[in-house]
Amino acid sequence: MDDAVYWYAMATVLLFVKMWATGLYQGYHRITKMTFKTPEDARMAGKEPAQEELPQVQQASKAWSNDLENIPIFLALGMAYVLVGASPGLAMWLFMGFTAARYAHTLAYLARLQPWRTIAYGVGLVCMIVMAIQIVLAL
Amino acid sequence: MDDAVYWYAMATVLLFVKMWATGLYQGYHRITKMTFKTPEDARMAGKEPAQEELPQVQQASKAWSNDLENIPIFLALGMAYVLVGASPGLAMWLFMGFTAARYAHTLAYLARLQPWRTIAYGVGLVCMIVMAIQIVLAL
Amino acid sequence: MDDAVYWYAMATVLLFVKMWATGLYQGYHRITKMTFKTPEDARMAGKEPAQEELPQVQQASKAWSNDLENIPIFLALGMAYVLVGASPGLAMWLFMGFTAARYAHTLAYLARLQPWRTIAYGVGLVCMIVMAIQIVLAL
Repeated sequence: MDDAVYWYAMATVLLFVKMWATGLYQGYHRITKMTFKTPEDARMAGKEPAQEELPQVQQASKAWSNDLENIPIFLALGMAYVLVGASPGLAMWLFMGFTAARYAHTLAYLARLQPWRTIAYGVGLVCMIVMAIQIVLAL
Repeated sequence: MDDAVYWYAMATVLLFVKMWATGLYQGYHRITKMTFKTPEDARMAGKEPAQEELPQVQQASKAWSNDLENIPIFLALGMAYVLVGASPGLAMWLFMGFTAARYAHTLAYLARLQPWRTIAYGVGLVCMIVMAIQIVLAL
Repeated sequence: MDDAVYWYAMATVLLFVKMWATGLYQGYHRITKMTFKTPEDARMAGKEPAQEELPQVQQASKAWSNDLENIPIFLALGMAYVLVGASPGLAMWLFMGFTAARYAHTLAYLARLQPWRTIAYGVGLVCMIVMAIQIVLAL
Protein backbone atom coordinates (compact mmCIF):
# COMPACT_ATOMS: atom_id res chain seq x y z
CA MET A 1 0.00 0.00 0.00
CA ASP A 2 1.12 3.51 -0.87
CA ASP A 3 2.47 5.45 2.14
CA ALA A 4 0.20 8.42 1.43
CA VAL A 5 -2.85 6.12 1.33
CA TYR A 6 -1.85 4.55 4.65
CA TRP A 7 -1.58 7.90 6.44
CA TYR A 8 -4.68 9.23 4.73
CA ALA A 9 -6.70 6.30 6.05
CA MET A 10 -5.15 6.70 9.50
CA ALA A 11 -5.96 10.44 9.62
CA THR A 12 -9.54 9.80 8.51
CA VAL A 13 -10.14 7.21 11.23
CA LEU A 14 -8.54 9.38 13.94
CA LEU A 15 -10.54 12.46 12.91
CA PHE A 16 -13.72 10.36 12.88
CA VAL A 17 -12.94 9.18 16.43
CA LYS A 18 -12.37 12.79 17.52
CA MET A 19 -15.65 14.04 16.09
CA TRP A 20 -17.50 11.12 17.62
CA ALA A 21 -15.86 11.81 21.00
CA THR A 22 -17.07 15.43 20.80
CA GLY A 23 -20.61 14.18 20.19
CA LEU A 24 -20.33 11.80 23.17
CA TYR A 25 -19.10 14.69 25.33
CA GLN A 26 -22.22 16.68 24.38
CA GLY A 27 -24.55 13.73 24.96
CA TYR A 28 -22.92 13.04 28.32
CA HIS A 29 -23.54 16.60 29.53
CA ARG A 30 -27.09 16.68 28.13
CA ILE A 31 -28.02 13.38 29.76
CA THR A 32 -26.28 13.77 33.15
CA LYS A 33 -27.82 17.25 33.53
CA MET A 34 -31.13 16.22 31.86
CA THR A 35 -31.06 19.42 29.79
CA PHE A 36 -32.46 19.30 26.25
CA LYS A 37 -33.25 22.23 24.00
CA THR A 38 -35.01 20.35 21.18
CA PRO A 39 -38.66 19.99 22.34
CA GLU A 40 -39.12 16.37 21.19
CA ASP A 41 -35.91 15.34 22.98
CA ALA A 42 -37.02 17.03 26.20
CA ARG A 43 -40.42 15.34 25.93
CA MET A 44 -38.76 11.93 25.56
CA ALA A 45 -36.91 12.62 28.85
CA GLY A 46 -40.10 13.89 30.50
CA LYS A 47 -38.68 17.42 30.86
CA GLU A 48 -39.50 20.96 29.74
CA PRO A 49 -37.31 22.07 26.82
CA ALA A 50 -34.34 24.17 28.03
CA GLN A 51 -34.05 27.82 26.97
CA GLU A 52 -30.40 27.40 26.12
CA GLU A 53 -27.94 24.60 25.54
CA LEU A 54 -25.52 23.92 28.41
CA PRO A 55 -22.23 25.89 28.29
CA GLN A 56 -20.26 22.68 27.69
CA VAL A 57 -22.58 21.72 24.83
CA GLN A 58 -22.26 25.20 23.30
CA GLN A 59 -18.47 25.14 23.56
CA ALA A 60 -18.31 21.66 21.99
CA SER A 61 -20.63 22.89 19.22
CA LYS A 62 -18.25 25.73 18.46
CA ALA A 63 -15.33 23.29 18.35
CA TRP A 64 -17.34 21.09 16.05
CA SER A 65 -18.33 23.98 13.77
CA ASN A 66 -14.68 24.82 13.41
CA ASP A 67 -13.97 21.15 12.63
CA LEU A 68 -16.61 21.22 9.92
CA GLU A 69 -14.93 24.26 8.38
CA ASN A 70 -11.54 22.53 8.34
CA ILE A 71 -11.79 18.74 8.26
CA PRO A 72 -13.80 18.17 5.04
CA ILE A 73 -11.50 20.43 3.01
CA PHE A 74 -8.46 18.72 4.61
CA LEU A 75 -9.84 15.31 3.63
CA ALA A 76 -10.40 16.49 0.06
CA LEU A 77 -6.88 17.95 -0.12
CA GLY A 78 -5.55 14.65 1.28
CA MET A 79 -7.46 12.75 -1.40
CA ALA A 80 -6.11 14.99 -4.17
CA TYR A 81 -2.65 14.61 -2.60
CA VAL A 82 -2.92 10.82 -2.89
CA LEU A 83 -4.38 10.88 -6.41
CA VAL A 84 -1.82 13.20 -7.98
CA GLY A 85 0.98 11.23 -6.30
CA ALA A 86 2.45 14.11 -4.26
CA SER A 87 5.43 13.43 -1.96
CA PRO A 88 4.71 10.19 -0.02
CA GLY A 89 7.56 11.05 2.39
CA LEU A 90 5.82 14.23 3.55
CA ALA A 91 2.39 12.59 3.78
CA MET A 92 2.89 11.22 7.29
CA TRP A 93 4.05 14.57 8.68
CA LEU A 94 1.33 16.58 6.98
CA PHE A 95 -1.59 14.23 7.66
CA MET A 96 -0.59 13.39 11.24
CA GLY A 97 0.39 17.01 11.92
CA PHE A 98 -3.04 18.19 10.88
CA THR A 99 -4.74 15.45 12.92
CA ALA A 100 -2.74 16.24 16.07
CA ALA A 101 -3.45 19.96 15.60
CA ARG A 102 -7.21 19.30 15.42
CA TYR A 103 -7.12 17.20 18.60
CA ALA A 104 -5.25 20.03 20.33
CA HIS A 105 -7.71 22.56 18.90
CA THR A 106 -10.76 20.77 20.32
CA LEU A 107 -9.15 20.33 23.74
CA ALA A 108 -8.13 24.00 23.81
CA TYR A 109 -11.69 25.01 22.83
CA LEU A 110 -13.30 22.92 25.57
CA ALA A 111 -10.82 24.21 28.16
CA ARG A 112 -11.06 27.79 26.76
CA LEU A 113 -7.28 27.93 26.53
CA GLN A 114 -6.02 30.83 24.48
CA PRO A 115 -3.67 31.41 22.61
CA TRP A 116 -3.34 27.60 22.35
CA ARG A 117 -6.57 27.24 20.40
CA THR A 118 -5.42 29.77 17.81
CA ILE A 119 -1.97 28.15 17.61
CA ALA A 120 -3.52 24.70 17.02
CA TYR A 121 -5.78 26.21 14.36
CA GLY A 122 -2.73 27.77 12.71
CA VAL A 123 -0.74 24.54 12.70
CA GLY A 124 -3.62 22.76 10.98
CA LEU A 125 -3.88 25.54 8.43
CA VAL A 126 -0.14 25.45 7.69
CA CYS A 127 -0.38 21.69 7.06
CA MET A 128 -3.17 22.32 4.55
CA ILE A 129 -1.26 25.13 2.83
CA VAL A 130 1.79 22.85 2.41
CA MET A 131 -0.50 20.11 1.08
CA ALA A 132 -2.01 22.53 -1.45
CA ILE A 133 1.47 23.57 -2.59
CA GLN A 134 2.60 19.94 -2.90
CA ILE A 135 -0.49 19.14 -4.98
CA VAL A 136 0.12 22.05 -7.34
CA LEU A 137 3.81 21.06 -7.67
CA ALA A 138 2.77 17.50 -8.59
CA LEU A 139 0.22 18.57 -11.24
CA MET B 1 -15.31 -1.90 -11.41
CA ASP B 2 -14.56 -2.70 -7.79
CA ASP B 3 -17.66 -3.47 -5.72
CA ALA B 4 -16.67 -0.98 -3.02
CA VAL B 5 -16.25 1.77 -5.66
CA TYR B 6 -19.68 0.96 -7.12
CA TRP B 7 -21.45 1.29 -3.77
CA TYR B 8 -19.40 4.32 -2.80
CA ALA B 9 -20.51 6.12 -5.97
CA MET B 10 -24.11 5.02 -5.39
CA ALA B 11 -24.10 6.26 -1.77
CA THR B 12 -22.60 9.61 -2.82
CA VAL B 13 -25.26 10.21 -5.47
CA LEU B 14 -28.11 9.17 -3.14
CA LEU B 15 -26.83 11.40 -0.32
CA PHE B 16 -26.46 14.29 -2.76
CA VAL B 17 -30.08 13.79 -3.86
CA LYS B 18 -31.20 13.77 -0.22
CA MET B 19 -29.38 16.99 0.65
CA TRP B 20 -30.72 18.65 -2.47
CA ALA B 21 -34.26 17.50 -1.61
CA THR B 22 -33.90 19.08 1.85
CA GLY B 23 -32.90 22.36 0.19
CA LEU B 24 -35.90 22.15 -2.15
CA TYR B 25 -38.16 21.52 0.85
CA GLN B 26 -36.84 24.72 2.48
CA GLY B 27 -37.17 26.73 -0.72
CA TYR B 28 -40.72 25.44 -1.25
CA HIS B 29 -41.82 26.61 2.22
CA ARG B 30 -40.02 29.96 1.89
CA ILE B 31 -41.56 30.68 -1.50
CA THR B 32 -45.12 29.40 -0.94
CA LYS B 33 -45.28 31.37 2.33
CA MET B 34 -43.27 34.31 0.93
CA THR B 35 -41.17 34.39 4.13
CA PHE B 36 -37.50 35.36 3.88
CA LYS B 37 -35.15 36.21 6.71
CA THR B 38 -32.16 37.41 4.65
CA PRO B 39 -32.91 41.10 3.86
CA GLU B 40 -31.74 41.02 0.22
CA ASP B 41 -33.91 37.94 -0.44
CA ALA B 42 -36.97 39.60 1.09
CA ARG B 43 -36.32 42.72 -0.99
CA MET B 44 -36.18 40.65 -4.18
CA ALA B 45 -39.63 39.26 -3.30
CA GLY B 46 -40.92 42.76 -2.41
CA LYS B 47 -41.39 41.81 1.27
CA GLU B 48 -40.16 42.90 4.69
CA PRO B 49 -37.50 40.53 6.07
CA ALA B 50 -39.02 37.98 8.48
CA GLN B 51 -37.98 37.99 12.15
CA GLU B 52 -37.53 34.24 12.16
CA GLU B 53 -37.24 31.43 9.66
CA LEU B 54 -40.38 29.29 9.27
CA PRO B 55 -40.64 26.26 11.61
CA GLN B 56 -40.30 23.86 8.64
CA VAL B 57 -37.19 25.72 7.43
CA GLN B 58 -35.70 25.63 10.94
CA GLN B 59 -36.39 21.92 11.32
CA ALA B 60 -34.88 21.18 7.89
CA SER B 61 -31.84 23.30 8.85
CA LYS B 62 -31.33 21.19 11.96
CA ALA B 63 -31.58 18.00 9.88
CA TRP B 64 -29.10 19.48 7.45
CA SER B 65 -26.68 20.52 10.20
CA ASN B 66 -26.74 16.99 11.48
CA ASP B 67 -26.08 15.76 7.92
CA LEU B 68 -23.09 18.07 7.68
CA GLU B 69 -21.72 16.60 10.91
CA ASN B 70 -22.07 13.06 9.59
CA ILE B 71 -22.00 12.84 5.80
CA PRO B 72 -18.59 14.39 5.01
CA ILE B 73 -16.82 12.16 7.52
CA PHE B 74 -18.75 9.14 6.18
CA LEU B 75 -17.66 10.00 2.64
CA ALA B 76 -14.05 10.29 3.76
CA LEU B 77 -14.25 6.98 5.62
CA GLY B 78 -15.82 5.42 2.50
CA MET B 79 -12.96 6.78 0.39
CA ALA B 80 -10.36 5.40 2.78
CA TYR B 81 -12.29 2.11 2.80
CA VAL B 82 -12.01 1.91 -0.99
CA LEU B 83 -8.36 2.97 -1.08
CA VAL B 84 -7.06 0.53 1.53
CA GLY B 85 -9.06 -2.27 -0.10
CA ALA B 86 -11.22 -3.14 2.93
CA SER B 87 -13.84 -5.91 2.59
CA PRO B 88 -15.74 -5.38 -0.72
CA GLY B 89 -18.43 -7.82 0.46
CA LEU B 90 -19.36 -5.61 3.40
CA ALA B 91 -19.22 -2.38 1.37
CA MET B 92 -22.77 -2.63 0.06
CA TRP B 93 -24.25 -3.24 3.52
CA LEU B 94 -22.24 -0.50 5.21
CA PHE B 95 -22.61 2.18 2.52
CA MET B 96 -26.28 1.50 1.78
CA GLY B 97 -27.05 1.02 5.49
CA PHE B 98 -25.61 4.43 6.27
CA THR B 99 -27.45 6.02 3.35
CA ALA B 100 -30.81 4.50 4.35
CA ALA B 101 -30.23 5.58 7.97
CA ARG B 102 -29.63 9.19 6.87
CA TYR B 103 -32.83 9.23 4.77
CA ALA B 104 -34.73 7.91 7.80
CA HIS B 105 -33.00 10.48 10.04
CA THR B 106 -34.08 13.43 7.88
CA LEU B 107 -37.66 12.19 7.63
CA ALA B 108 -37.82 11.63 11.40
CA TYR B 109 -36.42 15.15 11.99
CA LEU B 110 -38.98 16.80 9.71
CA ALA B 111 -41.84 14.80 11.28
CA ARG B 112 -40.37 15.30 14.79
CA LEU B 113 -40.58 11.55 15.40
CA GLN B 114 -38.65 10.44 18.43
CA PRO B 115 -37.06 7.97 19.28
CA TRP B 116 -36.86 7.15 15.55
CA ARG B 117 -34.57 10.07 14.82
CA THR B 118 -32.12 8.93 17.48
CA ILE B 119 -32.32 5.32 16.28
CA ALA B 120 -31.60 6.37 12.68
CA TYR B 121 -28.67 8.48 13.90
CA GLY B 122 -27.36 5.47 15.82
CA VAL B 123 -27.60 3.11 12.85
CA GLY B 124 -25.59 5.56 10.74
CA LEU B 125 -23.01 5.86 13.48
CA VAL B 126 -22.70 2.07 13.84
CA CYS B 127 -22.07 1.79 10.08
CA MET B 128 -19.26 4.35 10.39
CA ILE B 129 -17.75 2.59 13.41
CA VAL B 130 -17.70 -0.73 11.51
CA MET B 131 -16.14 1.06 8.52
CA ALA B 132 -13.43 2.55 10.75
CA ILE B 133 -12.68 -0.89 12.21
CA GLN B 134 -12.54 -2.47 8.73
CA ILE B 135 -10.14 0.26 7.58
CA VAL B 136 -7.83 -0.28 10.55
CA LEU B 137 -7.91 -4.06 9.99
CA ALA B 138 -6.94 -3.55 6.34
CA LEU B 139 -4.01 -1.22 7.10
CA MET C 1 -2.27 11.69 -15.05
CA ASP C 2 -5.95 11.24 -15.78
CA ASP C 3 -7.68 14.46 -16.92
CA ALA C 4 -10.44 14.09 -14.33
CA VAL C 5 -7.83 13.68 -11.55
CA TYR C 6 -6.00 16.80 -12.74
CA TRP C 7 -9.13 18.98 -12.62
CA TYR C 8 -10.30 17.41 -9.39
CA ALA C 9 -7.01 18.36 -7.72
CA MET C 10 -7.19 21.86 -9.23
CA ALA C 11 -10.76 22.40 -8.01
CA THR C 12 -9.86 21.18 -4.52
CA VAL C 13 -6.92 23.58 -4.22
CA LEU C 14 -8.92 26.54 -5.57
CA LEU C 15 -11.86 25.86 -3.23
CA PHE C 16 -9.44 25.56 -0.31
CA VAL C 17 -7.93 28.95 -1.22
CA LYS C 18 -11.43 30.47 -1.39
CA MET C 19 -12.46 29.15 2.03
CA TRP C 20 -9.19 30.30 3.53
CA ALA C 21 -9.65 33.76 1.97
CA THR C 22 -13.11 33.99 3.58
CA GLY C 23 -11.54 33.19 6.95
CA LEU C 24 -8.88 35.87 6.40
CA TYR C 25 -11.62 38.36 5.50
CA GLN C 26 -13.35 37.63 8.81
CA GLY C 27 -10.11 37.82 10.80
CA TYR C 28 -9.21 41.11 9.10
CA HIS C 29 -12.50 42.72 10.12
CA ARG C 30 -12.35 41.28 13.65
CA ILE C 31 -8.80 42.51 14.20
CA THR C 32 -8.96 45.94 12.52
CA LYS C 33 -12.17 46.71 14.44
CA MET C 34 -11.00 44.90 17.60
CA THR C 35 -14.41 43.21 17.91
CA PHE C 36 -14.55 39.67 19.30
CA LYS C 37 -17.63 37.78 20.42
CA THR C 38 -15.91 34.73 21.96
CA PRO C 39 -15.02 35.82 25.55
CA GLU C 40 -11.53 34.25 25.61
CA ASP C 41 -10.66 35.95 22.30
CA ALA C 42 -11.82 39.34 23.58
CA ARG C 43 -9.81 38.82 26.77
CA MET C 44 -6.66 38.08 24.73
CA ALA C 45 -7.16 41.44 22.96
CA GLY C 46 -7.87 43.19 26.29
CA LYS C 47 -11.46 43.99 25.28
CA GLU C 48 -14.98 43.27 26.49
CA PRO C 49 -16.69 40.52 24.44
CA ALA C 50 -18.93 42.01 21.72
CA GLN C 51 -22.70 41.38 21.85
CA GLU C 52 -22.79 40.52 18.17
CA GLU C 53 -20.37 39.64 15.41
CA LEU C 54 -19.63 42.43 12.91
CA PRO C 55 -21.97 42.60 9.87
CA GLN C 56 -19.09 41.66 7.53
CA VAL C 57 -18.21 38.67 9.75
CA GLN C 58 -21.87 37.58 9.83
CA GLN C 59 -22.21 37.85 6.06
CA ALA C 60 -18.98 35.90 5.51
CA SER C 61 -20.27 33.26 7.96
CA LYS C 62 -23.43 32.88 5.94
CA ALA C 63 -21.37 32.51 2.75
CA TRP C 64 -19.22 29.94 4.53
CA SER C 65 -22.23 27.99 5.82
CA ASN C 66 -23.53 27.78 2.29
CA ASP C 67 -20.08 26.59 1.17
CA LEU C 68 -20.16 23.87 3.81
CA GLU C 69 -23.53 22.72 2.49
CA ASN C 70 -22.22 22.50 -1.07
CA ILE C 71 -18.46 21.97 -1.26
CA PRO C 72 -18.05 18.69 0.70
CA ILE C 73 -20.77 16.96 -1.32
CA PHE C 74 -19.25 18.37 -4.55
CA LEU C 75 -15.85 17.00 -3.55
CA ALA C 76 -17.37 13.58 -2.84
CA LEU C 77 -19.22 13.60 -6.17
CA GLY C 78 -15.96 14.61 -7.88
CA MET C 79 -14.18 11.72 -6.19
CA ALA C 80 -16.87 9.25 -7.26
CA TYR C 81 -16.70 10.77 -10.75
CA VAL C 82 -12.96 10.05 -10.91
CA LEU C 83 -13.28 6.55 -9.43
CA VAL C 84 -16.03 5.29 -11.71
CA GLY C 85 -14.22 6.74 -14.73
CA ALA C 86 -16.98 9.12 -15.86
CA SER C 87 -16.40 11.35 -18.92
CA PRO C 88 -12.88 12.90 -18.60
CA GLY C 89 -13.77 15.41 -21.36
CA LEU C 90 -16.57 16.92 -19.26
CA ALA C 91 -14.53 16.92 -16.02
CA MET C 92 -12.83 20.26 -16.69
CA TRP C 93 -16.10 22.04 -17.46
CA LEU C 94 -17.98 20.57 -14.53
CA PHE C 95 -15.24 20.94 -11.90
CA MET C 96 -14.10 24.40 -12.99
CA GLY C 97 -17.69 25.52 -13.58
CA PHE C 98 -18.61 24.59 -10.01
CA THR C 99 -15.47 26.27 -8.65
CA ALA C 100 -16.10 29.52 -10.56
CA ALA C 101 -19.75 29.49 -9.43
CA ARG C 102 -18.68 29.19 -5.77
CA TYR C 103 -16.25 32.11 -6.10
CA ALA C 104 -19.06 34.18 -7.65
CA HIS C 105 -21.45 33.03 -4.91
CA THR C 106 -19.16 34.20 -2.09
CA LEU C 107 -18.50 37.57 -3.75
CA ALA C 108 -22.24 38.08 -4.35
CA TYR C 109 -22.94 37.17 -0.70
CA LEU C 110 -20.37 39.64 0.66
CA ALA C 111 -21.63 42.39 -1.66
CA ARG C 112 -25.29 41.42 -1.02
CA LEU C 113 -25.89 41.24 -4.76
CA GLN C 114 -29.14 39.55 -5.65
CA PRO C 115 -30.19 37.80 -7.93
CA TRP C 116 -26.50 37.08 -8.69
CA ARG C 117 -26.03 35.08 -5.51
CA THR C 118 -28.96 32.81 -6.37
CA ILE C 119 -27.77 32.46 -9.98
CA ALA C 120 -24.26 31.46 -8.82
CA TYR C 121 -25.79 28.97 -6.41
CA GLY C 122 -27.88 27.53 -9.24
CA VAL C 123 -24.91 27.17 -11.59
CA GLY C 124 -23.03 25.22 -8.93
CA LEU C 125 -26.05 23.01 -8.33
CA VAL C 126 -26.48 22.30 -12.05
CA CYS C 127 -22.81 21.22 -12.24
CA MET C 128 -23.42 18.79 -9.38
CA ILE C 129 -26.60 17.42 -10.96
CA VAL C 130 -24.77 16.78 -14.24
CA MET C 131 -21.95 15.11 -12.27
CA ALA C 132 -24.46 12.86 -10.48
CA ILE C 133 -26.02 11.89 -13.81
CA GLN C 134 -22.60 11.16 -15.36
CA ILE C 135 -21.70 8.98 -12.35
CA VAL C 136 -24.93 6.97 -12.64
CA LEU C 137 -24.40 6.56 -16.41
CA ALA C 138 -20.86 5.25 -15.78
CA LEU C 139 -21.93 2.70 -13.13
